[in-house]
Amino acid sequence: MDDKKHILLLSTSTVFGSGYLAYAEREITDFLGSSRRVLFVPFALHDRDGYAARVRRRFAECGYEIDSLHDATDARAAVANADAIFVGGGNTFRLLKTLYDLQLLEVVRENVVRGMRYIGSSAGSNIAGRTIQTTNDMPIVQPPSFNALGLVAFQINPHFVDADPGSKDMGETREERIAQFHEESETPVIGLREGAMVRVEAGVATLVGSAGARLFRKDRSAVELRAGSVLEGFVNSERI
Amino acid sequence: MDDKKHILLLSTSTVFGSGYLAYAEREITDFLGSSRRVLFVPFALHDRDGYAARVRRRFAECGYEIDSLHDATDARAAVANADAIFVGGGNTFRLLKTLYDLQLLEVVRENVVRGMRYIGSSAGSNIAGRTIQTTNDMPIVQPPSFNALGLVAFQINPHFVDADPGSKDMGETREERIAQFHEESETPVIGLREGAMVRVEAGVATLVGSAGARLFRKDRSAVELRAGSVLEGFVNSERI
Repeated sequence: MDDKKHILLLSTSTVFGSGYLAYAEREITDFLGSSRRVLFVPFALHDRDGYAARVRRRFAECGYEIDSLHDATDARAAVANADAIFVGGGNTFRLLKTLYDLQLLEVVRENVVRGMRYIGSSAGSNIAGRTIQTTNDMPIVQPPSFNALGLVAFQINPHFVDADPGSKDMGETREERIAQFHEESETPVIGLREGAMVRVEAGVATLVGSAGARLFRKDRSAVELRAGSVLEGFVNSERI
Repeated sequence: MDDKKHILLLSTSTVFGSGYLAYAEREITDFLGSSRRVLFVPFALHDRDGYAARVRRRFAECGYEIDSLHDATDARAAVANADAIFVGGGNTFRLLKTLYDLQLLEVVRENVVRGMRYIGSSAGSNIAGRTIQTTNDMPIVQPPSFNALGLVAFQINPHFVDADPGSKDMGETREERIAQFHEESETPVIGLREGAMVRVEAGVATLVGSAGARLFRKDRSAVELRAGSVLEGFVNSERI
């Protein structure tokens, strides 16, 4: 059943020096295939109308029509009937809380299992994992649970940055923060650099894009992943 | 009653290029006055024994004895009987969850109101505010609530960094994250740069230390604060 999952997880919507979604356009169009309508989820940002308008313009350039979930009279039906969904970035806590408030998590999960194509960017990638416990975002609102969609058996850390040896900042590096997560959990974490994506097709997760990623696991050394790296066993493992 | 509050909130335990708590030593010894025993709260880090040992050595250099709360047979009694408490940095979610699990928030709050001196660093400063909603930390565990001690009427953002105009990172700047918080809340936020501290005495909060801070309020321009700046009305305002 899981073989029907089609998932594309972006670290960021935009890489430095290029336009919105420009770096990912070819991957997105290849991923969407014949789907021409995409349901957009704008809940991670405060200005939903503005966000939906920006995404609608951008997808129109590539020949796609956007329906925004915040405009739907029946949000659950809109998700249930969608062929493809794009969950945009912003604040992960706000996004997840809104999905809980509208009771949408289960219908998204069910429809992805049935074959709805799922594109997430940043916060939208975070919520595809088991929990949002490796987000970089501020906890500006409190969702009832940190448990998320669990479409894949790992966590995403988007906008992953390697430690800067010249930094004078004494806060934890990203890698130290992920190590703190692994003091509490065994779920693998993929630190996705900006420009990297994870694509799941036919039960296999593959790293795509240009920037590479780091795979972090509890009590093991981090592993560098490059475009084409296959993440064995990370799609259909049992939920912990 | 609030006039008895003595609170010292550090952005960080360590500034670049100096030893643990070195930059803050003079402020801490002045703040502690005649108190010679300090109750240490190590819950923000996983290795409580190691953390307590490090803090014990450091405070011994200045003539203070440390009792670590994780060694206490009755944690609530230990807090209730303390003259001074130091809540160390680490992960804010872990710290707050542990305080909830051990039912310690109320006894800490009550004893600060009665005059127990409270020193917080980083995560320990976050939890002195109304909520932990402006922490930079990863949500590696889930506390039952984001509401914190509310010893002061503002939020701390520790390790505050100004936006780097040369950055190629496309994640939100710290200021943008705090603006997202203000889309959801009206509580003022003090972005404390590493090296800056807030000291509360006799109902007045004053910025001390070398690095300065930024005051962020909903729908208002940010204000730069320097050592000696008084934060009017930010101690005893009603909790929202």
